[in-house]
Amino acid sequence: MNEKLREAIRAIRTREYYSAFAESPSPKVYGDAAAGEGRAAFEAHLGSRFQVSTPGSTGDVATETSPYGLALDVSYPRVDAKAIEELMAAARAGMRGWRDAGPERRTEVCVQVLEALHARIFELANAVQHTTGQAFVMAFQAGGAHALDRALEALAYAHEVMSFHPPSATWTKPGRSGPLVMDKTFTVVPCGVALVVGCNTFPTWNSFPGLFSSLSCGNPVIIKPHPRAVLPLAITAQVCQQVLAEAGFDPHLVTLAVEGEGDQLAKELALHPAVRLIDFTGGNDFGDWLEQNAHQARVFTEKSGVNAIVLDSTDDFNGMCQNLAFTLALYSGQMCTTSQNIFIPADGIATDDGRVSPADVALGIGAAIERLLGDDARGVELLGAIVSPAVLRRLERAERSGKVVVASRAIAHPSYPDAVVRTPLMVAVDAGSSDYQTECFGPVSFLISTASTEDSLTRFGQTVTEHGAMTAGIYSTDEEVLAAAREVALQSGVALSENLTGSVYVNQSAAFSDFHGTGANPAANASYIDLAYVASRFHLVQSRRPGVPPTVCGRDPYRPQ
Amino acid sequence: MNEKLREAIRAIRTREYYSAFAESPSPKVYGDAAAGEGRAAFEAHLGSRFQVSTPGSTGDVATETSPYGLALDVSYPRVDAKAIEELMAAARAGMRGWRDAGPERRTEVCVQVLEALHARIFELANAVQHTTGQAFVMAFQAGGAHALDRALEALAYAHEVMSFHPPSATWTKPGRSGPLVMDKTFTVVPCGVALVVGCNTFPTWNSFPGLFSSLSCGNPVIIKPHPRAVLPLAITAQVCQQVLAEAGFDPHLVTLAVEGEGDQLAKELALHPAVRLIDFTGGNDFGDWLEQNAHQARVFTEKSGVNAIVLDSTDDFNGMCQNLAFTLALYSGQMCTTSQNIFIPADGIATDDGRVSPADVALGIGAAIERLLGDDARGVELLGAIVSPAVLRRLERAERSGKVVVASRAIAHPSYPDAVVRTPLMVAVDAGSSDYQTECFGPVSFLISTASTEDSLTRFGQTVTEHGAMTAGIYSTDEEVLAAAREVALQSGVALSENLTGSVYVNQSAAFSDFHGTGANPAANASYIDLAYVASRFHLVQSRRPGVPPTVCGRDPYRPQ
Repeated sequence: MNEKLREAIRAIRTREYYSAFAESPSPKVYGDAAAGEGRAAFEAHLGSRFQVSTPGSTGDVATETSPYGLALDVSYPRVDAKAIEELMAAARAGMRGWRDAGPERRTEVCVQVLEALHARIFELANAVQHTTGQAFVMAFQAGGAHALDRALEALAYAHEVMSFHPPSATWTKPGRSGPLVMDKTFTVVPCGVALVVGCNTFPTWNSFPGLFSSLSCGNPVIIKPHPRAVLPLAITAQVCQQVLAEAGFDPHLVTLAVEGEGDQLAKELALHPAVRLIDFTGGNDFGDWLEQNAHQARVFTEKSGVNAIVLDSTDDFNGMCQNLAFTLALYSGQMCTTSQNIFIPADGIATDDGRVSPADVALGIGAAIERLLGDDARGVELLGAIVSPAVLRRLERAERSGKVVVASRAIAHPSYPDAVVRTPLMVAVDAGSSDYQTECFGPVSFLISTASTEDSLTRFGQTVTEHGAMTAGIYSTDEEVLAAAREVALQSGVALSENLTGSVYVNQSAAFSDFHGTGANPAANASYIDLAYVASRFHLVQSRRPGVPPTVCGRDPYRPQ
Repeated sequence: MNEKLREAIRAIRTREYYSAFAESPSPKVYGDAAAGEGRAAFEAHLGSRFQVSTPGSTGDVATETSPYGLALDVSYPRVDAKAIEELMAAARAGMRGWRDAGPERRTEVCVQVLEALHARIFELANAVQHTTGQAFVMAFQAGGAHALDRALEALAYAHEVMSFHPPSATWTKPGRSGPLVMDKTFTVVPCGVALVVGCNTFPTWNSFPGLFSSLSCGNPVIIKPHPRAVLPLAITAQVCQQVLAEAGFDPHLVTLAVEGEGDQLAKELALHPAVRLIDFTGGNDFGDWLEQNAHQARVFTEKSGVNAIVLDSTDDFNGMCQNLAFTLALYSGQMCTTSQNIFIPADGIATDDGRVSPADVALGIGAAIERLLGDDARGVELLGAIVSPAVLRRLERAERSGKVVVASRAIAHPSYPDAVVRTPLMVAVDAGSSDYQTECFGPVSFLISTASTEDSLTRFGQTVTEHGAMTAGIYSTDEEVLAAAREVALQSGVALSENLTGSVYVNQSAAFSDFHGTGANPAANASYIDLAYVASRFHLVQSRRPGVPPTVCGRDPYRPQ
């Protein structure tokens, strides 16, 4: 077995640290030429027709613009509703050969895909940067190395669940007139065509778990990228097609279906009877629609949520403020895991700096943000760019509507003058406000004054239960409060981070160890990655026939000698 | 670990033969008194108010009549729509304690439930017999021992999937300024209230996998039995409540919700937001409705299907006819696994008796049925009784509408004069007929003349893909035909039995080894039992906090000594 896969399998069982793909873009790791070559490969795509095979496509479409202002102008084969049947037929054409290859071979080929993607990690990172607005290093890590780790994690799970049952068995039931013997085979068969609907902000990280789970379990995959973040998944599809073809499989086991803005292609694809698996990351509207309408498919969604932090007390006020500042600043809060709601008792919290009021906390976090981002050139490497005008409008609306306790500052990007870069905004609201009850995706957080920590925990639980969350955090020096927070997290079904004051952040989720989402609250109906996430992607079909009763050296062990 | 559970875990991995609960009701196995005591316990229920605690119930309801004509007149607490909130609150009250008990303890308590049910197996068998119409021995086996085996199988899977991930881990990421360490916990949390909707014909066998999967994964279970088959699940609920209470848990973790005919209670329960898991066995109408409407829940259904047999050739014509006769006769074909459609080339098949025509096959099967059932007293022990007037009406309609090639005979039951007992009917139809395209549940099969075996295989695949099937069979002496049949079975997603001529029957499914249903065709969206069936019944919620960097004997291994 491949060494990385073996290590990955060990890691998902132990949940200890593992990473298969180096996260540092340093020349010391990847060599002096890698960064330049990757950048050049990315630039070669600009203004060109991307080479990927999409059966049934008619004409081209180009829908991407870089949040950094770069004219991407990459065109892709366009799929419209009339083309779907041809696309589906092409997707299914290679299914039998892929099924017959068996779990071990499929997993092996998928690992080869990851290695081939890894060889293009700098190109991929540039593509992620210029579609999502992530800063380069983050695009390299989250969009490259960590996404590949998540993909490998999917393969490790797929390997384990597909090999849980043996491919064959002999069943021997003792009986008075001799044993009944049946020879049985158990074949892993695909569910059908898998649809992966990508999102704008994490096109690879959020798509790879579903893509590689489905593919390795035998299902052909149609990737429908977000119109604003096509290139990273186009590169992915291209690599998949190349590796599949080289390994002797039908390259159309992975296809790219790009739509024009407003084409509603995802809906058409999602309701097609051949589509049996759907992975979606994005807003509640379409996610809920999928869950309620695509009955023929098993639907895995990650949607909106209101991530929470509860402040009770801390023995490291400075560390807490720094940690939260980083969380709020990273990628301008444009992560499904970024904290939005910070609950704090109106009469303040006990700290190593004495009792601090909500206003003091805002000052502390604001100061930490300024330390982190005060230098523009450094700041933009953490903030990245605002991904879309919608995020900017949301931020501006929040600025006008609330009591601003940490102001958002516009930063001029030293390299990309057209990029919109903003520091995090924090708005103070009362516990009775409805503002914080819905997701305000982007660099906006709410500092919510409550009656007490108990009240904070109640509201934390209520908002997560009703509106969902991917992450939650608690700061407390009191083990009883921590236990109470854990209980609320268990009941509302959200992952909890306790007292993060160092270099681990609530919005970061480590492959092989952290579960991303729980499936237990409205923010997601699945978890990256647990057994249910992968085991639901294939069926077992058995065949049995009468077998020959066992004999030992020609003697029938059931007959006395 | 409990010995039976350990053996069960081994068996689900090897798929070799295992049974934990003796299937023979013989006094040699269960003792001389067991049968009489069980019968007396069953009779003590007749005409009485069943003792089970159903919070919120108002008044009583009695809806059962024995297919054998016995006046059951057992009354149960009635649940109407107004009572649901109180029932849900009671179901949820014990959830936290049950969750905190953890996977090992929950599994242990569930095994105790099975042992306690086993102690009442004769009572249970009588209850199954007199609600389903199964003959006693079959009720004892399928409704008792095998149902308990399936339940234990569910516990084995639950144990394996809940323990796949460790309850805690230390994550240590190497770093330049020392390692980052996080201590993590991973808690198995329930999805919510589980609803089990029982069926008329196999109230225990078909309900136990869902019931015990859900319960052992931490979910409270509400059992909604079929109005005509309440008693077996009432006994089950009573035992669950007793064992749970004795073990210190809330007995209402399992409750019984009985409705009056036409109360539509299942719909009301199924849409309740607290209900997150639903197991259903029954017709397409309600099964499809559940899949399309109960969006808040994970729905597992087993519905209708058109099970197929393809006849190509055989070297044991007599064995084939005997085997099929038994399959068609067992419980009057009132099994979701009984073959309905028998495809045969119009020009006949090659056998060890020479070439036989479809008419010869009908004669052969008819003669085998007569050998099997010709003695009335022996016949009723295989046939049981017709479960409901609807089945009888369907049989009579089929008799009138088609060309009868094996006539159905009415048998007077020697012990129960009011029982309706009928031998299997076989109707010959052309391949173009639509009669065989829908399920005709009961003792009705169709002998379908096709152009060739290839045509038979095509129609077999088409009917299964469009209308579903739980089982399929092939008879052929040609390995190429067998391979072609396997391919059709893989593509249409149905379990195949090849050349059954002995004492294994296509409609029987062995716990721990055979998968019941595949989830890959319209007859069922799940399989009893695979990983997905159980792994989807809980969530993992993690908590993490900074940990202490590892030291060896007080020395920090990351610092040079």
